[in-house]
This record gives sequence, C-alpha cells and structure tokens, in this order.
Amino acid sequence: MSETTTRAPIDLDLAGEVAAQLRVDSVRSSTSAGSGHPTSSMSAADLLAVLVTRHLRYDWDDPGAAGNDHLIFSKGHASPLLYSVFKSVGVVDDDELMSGYRRFDQRLEGHPTPRLPWVDVATGSLGQGLPDGVGVALAGRHLEDAPYRVWVLCGDSELAEGSIWEALDKASHYRLTNLVALVDVNRLGQRGETDLGWDMDAYARRVEAFGARAIVIDGHDLDEIDAALAAATDDEIDRPVVVLARTVKGKGFAKIEDSPEWHGKPLPSDLADEAIAELGGERHLQVRGPLPPDVTPPDLTTTPVELPTYELGTEVATRNAYGDGLLALGRADPRVVALDGEVSNSTHADTFADAIPERFFEMYIAEQQLVAAATGLSVRGYVAFASTFAAFLTRAYDFIRMAPVSRADLRLVGSHAGVEIGADGPSQMALEDLAMIRATHGSTVLYPADATSTVALVDVMAHTPGVVYMRTTRGAYPVLYDPQETFEVGGSKTLRSSAADQVTLVGAGITTHEALRAADLLADDGITARVIDAYSVKPIDVAALTAAAEATGGRIVVAEDHHPEGGLGAAVIAALVEAGVSGLRLEHLAVRGVPGSGSGPELLAWAGIDADHIAAAARVLART
Amino acid sequence: MSETTTRAPIDLDLAGEVAAQLRVDSVRSSTSAGSGHPTSSMSAADLLAVLVTRHLRYDWDDPGAAGNDHLIFSKGHASPLLYSVFKSVGVVDDDELMSGYRRFDQRLEGHPTPRLPWVDVATGSLGQGLPDGVGVALAGRHLEDAPYRVWVLCGDSELAEGSIWEALDKASHYRLTNLVALVDVNRLGQRGETDLGWDMDAYARRVEAFGARAIVIDGHDLDEIDAALAAATDDEIDRPVVVLARTVKGKGFAKIEDSPEWHGKPLPSDLADEAIAELGGERHLQVRGPLPPDVTPPDLTTTPVELPTYELGTEVATRNAYGDGLLALGRADPRVVALDGEVSNSTHADTFADAIPERFFEMYIAEQQLVAAATGLSVRGYVAFASTFAAFLTRAYDFIRMAPVSRADLRLVGSHAGVEIGADGPSQMALEDLAMIRATHGSTVLYPADATSTVALVDVMAHTPGVVYMRTTRGAYPVLYDPQETFEVGGSKTLRSSAADQVTLVGAGITTHEALRAADLLADDGITARVIDAYSVKPIDVAALTAAAEATGGRIVVAEDHHPEGGLGAAVIAALVEAGVSGLRLEHLAVRGVPGSGSGPELLAWAGIDADHIAAAARVLART
Repeated sequence: MSETTTRAPIDLDLAGEVAAQLRVDSVRSSTSAGSGHPTSSMSAADLLAVLVTRHLRYDWDDPGAAGNDHLIFSKGHASPLLYSVFKSVGVVDDDELMSGYRRFDQRLEGHPTPRLPWVDVATGSLGQGLPDGVGVALAGRHLEDAPYRVWVLCGDSELAEGSIWEALDKASHYRLTNLVALVDVNRLGQRGETDLGWDMDAYARRVEAFGARAIVIDGHDLDEIDAALAAATDDEIDRPVVVLARTVKGKGFAKIEDSPEWHGKPLPSDLADEAIAELGGERHLQVRGPLPPDVTPPDLTTTPVELPTYELGTEVATRNAYGDGLLALGRADPRVVALDGEVSNSTHADTFADAIPERFFEMYIAEQQLVAAATGLSVRGYVAFASTFAAFLTRAYDFIRMAPVSRADLRLVGSHAGVEIGADGPSQMALEDLAMIRATHGSTVLYPADATSTVALVDVMAHTPGVVYMRTTRGAYPVLYDPQETFEVGGSKTLRSSAADQVTLVGAGITTHEALRAADLLADDGITARVIDAYSVKPIDVAALTAAAEATGGRIVVAEDHHPEGGLGAAVIAALVEAGVSGLRLEHLAVRGVPGSGSGPELLAWAGIDADHIAAAARVLART
Repeated sequence: MSETTTRAPIDLDLAGEVAAQLRVDSVRSSTSAGSGHPTSSMSAADLLAVLVTRHLRYDWDDPGAAGNDHLIFSKGHASPLLYSVFKSVGVVDDDELMSGYRRFDQRLEGHPTPRLPWVDVATGSLGQGLPDGVGVALAGRHLEDAPYRVWVLCGDSELAEGSIWEALDKASHYRLTNLVALVDVNRLGQRGETDLGWDMDAYARRVEAFGARAIVIDGHDLDEIDAALAAATDDEIDRPVVVLARTVKGKGFAKIEDSPEWHGKPLPSDLADEAIAELGGERHLQVRGPLPPDVTPPDLTTTPVELPTYELGTEVATRNAYGDGLLALGRADPRVVALDGEVSNSTHADTFADAIPERFFEMYIAEQQLVAAATGLSVRGYVAFASTFAAFLTRAYDFIRMAPVSRADLRLVGSHAGVEIGADGPSQMALEDLAMIRATHGSTVLYPADATSTVALVDVMAHTPGVVYMRTTRGAYPVLYDPQETFEVGGSKTLRSSAADQVTLVGAGITTHEALRAADLLADDGITARVIDAYSVKPIDVAALTAAAEATGGRIVVAEDHHPEGGLGAAVIAALVEAGVSGLRLEHLAVRGVPGSGSGPELLAWAGIDADHIAAAARVLART
C-alpha cells in the first residue's frame, strides 16, 4: 500500500475524484487491451466510488477477514471498473491494470474470477452474481449472525433473467437485510435498448412486488447515491434493498454517452485520449474506505463422523441413505448445510432438515437459486449439499458450469434418476445428468448402488473439492456392502470375480443390481461373469476396468440408466481406449428411446438395460 | 363421440356437474393406477370445468384445426384432471382412463405429452408450460393474426421458477392479449406450504408489476371463474391476463382438503370410495364447449432457397455465415422465424432481423424463454431458429431436454464456442455444449468449419426433426469448400487423403483449421496425414472414420475446443469401438483446464489443441 493512501472518512468531493479516476482507468485499461467494456463501466463509476470510499467495510490487506463485506459484480463485463477500483484502493498497480487486463496468463481476466483474492465468485454469465450473493448473505444472516454486508452490482439487462427474480424472492423470504443490490440502469444492452429502458417505476414495482425495498436514484448524483447506500444499511431496514440507479452508458465522455453503438468496445486511442482529457486527465489516487468490525469467526470444530450402518441384504433406497449420511455428517461437522428444491421428502434431505433445521434452507422450486445459494455458502466456507430430482438439476447447468471458474466446492445430489422411477414418466427421469456433470471441469460423479456405499460417499463428498455430484435412486434395493468397506473417488467394487471369468458386466446404481442378477442368469448357462460396481463414474476406475477387460478377453457389457452419450458407457469406453486395451468387444446398453410411464422393471426391460438384456448381450459376447 | 354429448352453450349448473365428474375421475384414475396427483387435480377442477365447457374454443374432432385454442397444463402433475377433461369431452373413454393411466406403453402418461393429439407440449418439469405458451401465443399475435387463445394452467409452486417471470415479462412486452394463465393457488407444494401461501395480493402485485393483468378470484366459485374468463377474453384487454384462483387442495373431499399430507398420493380404495360418494358418485357426462371460428391457415408456401456463396480461401466467420444462411432460408420459407437472446449482433441473427423484422423476436437475456418460445412456435408449425452464445444455452438445458418429449423441432445455434473466443474468458466460452446436446435424445449436433458448410447446414437444419444444434465460431477462417459441395446430417469431409496416409487428424469447427495446418507441418516432416472435417458431431460419420482408422493403422488424433467428456472425441471413440475397429491408437486433445483470457491462438496453444499440438501428437503416433 502506497504512502499516499487516503483513509476513511472520505468526503464526497474526494469520492467524485475517485469516480473520475475509475472512468479514466476503465477507458485506459480497455483501450490498452483492445477489448472490454468501458461504457458499461463508466455508467456505474459513481455508484462504485461512493460505495467503496464510504460504505463498503473491507480490509484490503486481509481479503479473508471474517468481517469483510462482500462485493460481487453480477455485471461481470464491467471488469474494467472493478479492476480500477482495485487500483484505487492500492491492491492492483497501474502497470498491471495497463499491461495485464485481458492478457494471456494474467489474473485481470475479461470477467472477474476468484484468481483475484478480492473476488468471491466468477461472473460474466449474467444473472448469476445476485443469486450467488443471496447464498453469501444467507450465511451471514442465518448461520453466523455476522455483521458483513453483501453488495451486488447488477446490470439492467440481466434483470430479464428469471434467476434474478428467484434471487429476490429468496432474499425477501429469508429477510436478507444484509443484501444490497445496486442496479446500473443505463438503458442500453448489447444491441440496443433493454426491455424496460429507463422505466424506473416499472423496475421499482417489480422489486417491491418481490419483497425488496426499491430506492430509485440518479446514479450520477453523489449525494443521492450516498443517501441511498446509507438508507440501505440503516438498522431499521427489514428487507433486502435494491438501489435502482438511473445512469448513462459511457457517462463522462459526451461523444459516446447513451449511444447504442459503444457496447463492449474499447475506445480507439485518439478517442481515449479525448475522453481522458474530458474526464480531467489521469489520476493515481489511493483511497480506502472504512474497515470492517472485528469479527470472531464461528466455531466450526468438527467431530468424527459416525455413519449409519445397514444390514447386508436389507432393501434401502440410496436416496434414504443420502438423508441418513447427510444427517450423520451434519452432526459431526457444523459447516455442513443442506438445501433443497421443495422435494426434500423425495430426496430425503428432510432427514437432515428435521433434525438440524437451523442449517437447512428451503429454496422452493427454483433450481438456479438452489445451486447459486450453495455456491454462495461455499464462499463463506460452508459445505453445502444441494438436492433435487436429478432431472431438474439441468435447470441450473449454467450455474454448475460456472462453479469451477468460481473455484466453488459444490455438492449436488440428484434423486429419481433414470427410467427406474417408473410411472411419473420422462419429464421426471434424469437421462442426461451424468453427461452434464461429467462435462463440467474438474467434476466428480458418484452413483452408488447401495446404502452402505451411499453414506460412505456422502462423507467423501464433504472432503472432495470442485463440483461433486451424487446420483441416487428412487427404489429400495438390497444392501451390498458391509459397513467396513471403503469407497473412494476413482474407485470401484468387483462384486463377482473368478479366475475363469468370460465376460465383464459393468453397472452403476440400479444397473449394478441388474448386472448381479444377470451374472446369476449367466451362471445358470455356465457362463462366469465378473461384475463391477462402477460407483465412481468420474473419475472411473481405469485399473479395475483394464484388468477386467484383459481377464475376460475384452468382453464387456456396460449397462446404464442414462442416454448413451456422455455417461457411464462413455466413461468406460474412453478409459479403456486411453489405456490402450486391445481387442475390445464392448456392448453398451443404455436408454435409446423416449420412455413413457410404467413400472420400474417394465421400463428397465423396455430400455434394454435389465438383467435379461445384460445377460443376453453377455451371451453373444461369450460365444465369440 | 357419444350420442349423449351435450353441446354448447353450457350453463354453470352443468359446468358444476362436470367439475364434480372431473374430481371423481381424478380420484378414480389415480387410485386405479396406484400413483398420481388427485389432490392437485381437485383444486383446479372448477377452473377447468368452466373453461372447457364455456370458454375454450376447440374442435375435439379435429385437434389440428388452425382456429383451435391451445390448452397447456404447466402443472403437468395434474394429469388426472387433464385426462378427465378428455373423458368429459368424449375423446378418451372411461376404460382407457381407468386402465391406461400411468401404465406401461399407454398414452395417458404420468405427465402429459404430445403422444395425445390434444396436448401441445410435454410438461412435468415445472415452470415450462407458461414459457412454451408464450411461444404459441407469439405466433397467433404476431405471425398469423389468428383468433386462437392460449390457456395455461399453472400451479402456485411453480411461480417460484424464474422462467415464469421471464415468460410474463415477454408476454407483456409482446402484448400477448391472447394468453391467459390460470394459477391454481392451492397453497401447498410437495412438502408443505409454498413460499407465498394464500397471499393473493403478493401474487397480484408481482403479476401486475410484470405487465400482466391480475384477476384474483375464489377458484371454487363458478360465477367468479366464469366472469374472470370472460374478462380475460374481452376485446378491450390490452395485456396478457393471469387469473389468480384461490383454491383448496383436495377440494371436494373434506377429509383431505387443505392437508399437506396428500401431495402426489392416490387415495387408498376405501378412501376413494368415500370421496366419490361425497362428490355425488360417478358421472359419465359428455359435454363440449364452443367450437373455434373457421380460420384459413396462413399461406406458408416455400420457394427454392438460394444460399449465399463464398470464395475459397476468403476469411469468413461461421457466425456471419449463419446469419447469411438464415436470411436466405427466411426469404424462401415463410415458416422460418428467428429468435435471439440479446446478442444478435454477435450471433448474427441480426442479418435476418434487419431484413425480416416481422419474423424476428428479441427475447432479451432470458435463455429459458428463448428456447421455450422456439418450442411454442414449433407447435404452430414454424421453423424457429434460436441463437445466443453457446455457453448460455446451458441456461436452458431443462427446456432442451424436454423438447424430444414434447416432440418439438428445435433449431439452436450457439456462437462464441470454446477457448477460440479469446479475451472474454471462461464465462463466455462454451466447453460443455456439445456434451449437453449430444446427451439429448434424438439430437443432431453440427459444427461447421467454414462459411460454405455453414450455410448448407443451416438449410439442412430446417429440414431435420428433433433438437438440432449448430455451434458457430467467433473468428474468421478461410472458406474450405466450393458452393457445390453437399453436406448432410451424419456426413463428414475428408480434406486431405492419399494412399500413403500414416495418421488421421479429426477436427470440427476451429480444430479443422488447426488439423489442416498440422497436416502441413507433418508434411514438412515427411508424414502424410489424412484430415477429416467432422462437421456432423452427432450422428458422426462412422464409415469415414472407420475407413480412415483402417487406412492409417488405427492412428487417430482428435482435437476439439471442448472439455474432453461428451464432445467430438467421445463421439469418435464410441463410433470406432462400436464399429469394432481393432488396434486403435487414439490421441484425444481437448480443453482440460480452466482457461483465462488471452488471444484465440494463445489459448488454443495453452489448451493443447492447436496445429503444433496436433502435429506433435501425430508424430508420436506415426513413430509407432
């Protein structure tokens, strides 16, 4: 930190100087990079200048301080503004701003990510920052009783995203008085005027109808901004606050103000020079606002987990075991939090919710907010498990794909997977979920077949970084494993094997049980089959699969309750080809049509993934 | 149709009898099936009885009649009610209702699908029916000037989904006075009270704030219902209407009314008998409401498409060619409609929008509604192309996965795919899109490398059923093909080949260009490479790949600008293993880390998918 830093309290005149500097630096950095969004930064510069100098309580020397406020740029494309703020408080220097922005291998990326220690979550996919902020605020309001505030800068265009309204609905439901959204209503989207333009009343009506307090201001009047931010943090506030700031895109450089032609375009250097001159020239102020109160972090001491045990052979649904495991984990680890999308009596997150209601959040039928809240909770160090029907996690895929960019640890649990669910029909059947999560960077995909492995893997999930997904099954099936068995990411269990195995049957979840039954059918025909429970779909157990392939002459049947693309079969095939296994003769059984209703067994048979079909495929292979 | 059918006009007393029958049949059908949602049906029975007997204009003998109203059950779990309606108008008989509901291989599925000719779209994933209805209404209001109305029955729980608010926002923006949502506010979700319970004022404020007219009624008062539906269809109405009906779950059987214990549960037979008795016993009325006006379908005669042509070697971005091709298609085919998510100047849907504005719909930043509108337009026979950044299609995955269940033909176009986009960073880079769409049932995935193939494939898309996805590229690259080349679903182009090929390089989109450059590098080393442009990622060209593998000793390098799971590499590997190709030595180059910003070439090199890396991988293979 430079010696020239000015400390709080900062008056509005100086804040105005900071605002001019933020504009100049937004122009300079984007022009230097040859790309970026100066005009969308300039519209919000006054908001940020007043916020950062006078209201945001943040120790810039200690971004991990428990009492720090949180600042989230939901309009991530205004990254020049954010990085200019970082310069204004002295944590990024002018050299980095001018030579690092949007450059290869540099941390000042086109849209902010937590590569920067002052950034909580990655943004840039609009409509995500506010929902993420709801998760951060939930922790402060309901888990920690902490004084920090969550400030979220939103664009007006992104208010067209349904996820914003899911967020405000939950923010008001949970009375998140620690959440303040600042909406930069600059009227212009990427290609012209937004849906509502400068209709501030329309925005205010929507915000108020969703249970938040709307404060409409001129977003370039420093006094109005200051008063709004003070009101938003008043002790009497009983609702989340949305400051609706009427602004002008490109504000500060008359030639481009309010022009639809200048979205996402850096100024050519001659125009940049002109703009900088009009803005009063370069400044290199360093000004810091108030520090946070001292906060003692909550006591999050863990005790050893005592997982429930199940007797071999008893029939238990893995979704029930999920609830049991989650509760055991929750009792041992105060960081464990559960969220659900209004189906907790199906996913059995209710087992946790009934016993530890203070760490359970009902997100109702709003899966985007469900996943975003888990992301936000992970920012505060919580181990959040979010559950719904596996099919409905597809609703939140954009949020899931952003989790690795946010460096968030997300634990997702999807129940009622595949045609096994039966009568409800295809709308409720996840048949794409394994593919969806496998394609997410750094993800782990678990699909246990029994209760013992489920509870063990719930424990594993708590300690696995990144996006970790567990798929559970609706019906009850026999417990396969003793409580002392161990399960790990990348593991598998070989349930049947002998020196004379002729064919390998690979299943996961429900198809593990079908493969076991198939092995019995094959045994009746004198065919010995190895059976592998591939409970870790990603990473898959390459060693066990390779050994099995080699032991059984390359004969493998993979069966999965999922579409043929991107799931268990794809994982097995990719692993074996990558391992260079030769002479593969692989049959891949998967759901290749659109299912209807029926019983689980009827539909497993219809899809060709039940024991009979596995055995039939194995018989053909065994003959060759 | 039975001779006992009563015809319109129907008085409210008879409508009341129909309502009782709908309740009785909802109980009977779900009890007979042993599953289903009788209580969620009973709450809305009065609404449906009045609607179907007095306001819905529908020729039940001709579900394809152009003038028919549309009836969409956004709360698809109330299928017993819908199927009971179908019995009440005489198109489903009592036997089918009692023996077919939720049974294997029967059309009365757990949630309605277009296997039934009176059902437009599949529902059951909550929050989709209303957005789909917006698409259907857009056609009537803005493409056909048709008199039909779109009636959508919503649950109250699903109003927590952001997609509902995306839908109302667009419905009011486009002044869809032909859209009426009926919300069955029965207070109870699956596991207890909804977020807002019976707070009808809160619902009304939200609905009005989003630009629709809210009419709050007692949903069990037939006069109030009738008046509301009449008001909703009044000629003076200048906004979409949302009828907010306060109802009681399980209405009609006192023992279970308003009980949170009876969600999604059929009544045991003794309770069912009791309920039927309380409801006045079985009825088998056949009552039909008003017929639609005669409507002359719009003239949708097509003329031959004249695709634009490009000179070999000139540099054209495929996203630009997409716009060119779409415009050519639109000029030839009046059924072609374009929609975009506020990025049309990036996807280049603007080429179409500028020339044919009357068939372009701006959906703003609301990707769920974008895809839902395309689904709804397909219900009316339009060929709708929906475009946004490929990354943001992940926002709509739940809608995409439902399209095959809805039997909808969806044309999706995602631009700015992969690390090739450069400076904007990972939030804007689609790296999961190929996996996501490949895992969708019956989908087609196209990823052209040049302008000629792009425009040809845009034409192919218009004639390809199901979900068809095209991935386009940000940067401009050389035109590779003469205008007379043909391109087809399942095809590929072999760009380099000789009798002495030692290794095969497979690319698609940007990596086709990298593979060509790699072949040049390899030629300098005396290694001859076959180069395949796998522009059809799904289905993939098995014959060409198999022939290439056999010609080049199983040596294949696949490079893709996508995560390693579920994309081009997965498609190639699955095809070759399924074809039984032996001795595969395959190198799969894909994006295996989280990218940052940088230039396209820097990031392609960083990811290890550029020409240098392809050539290096090929050299290793060629040595073995």
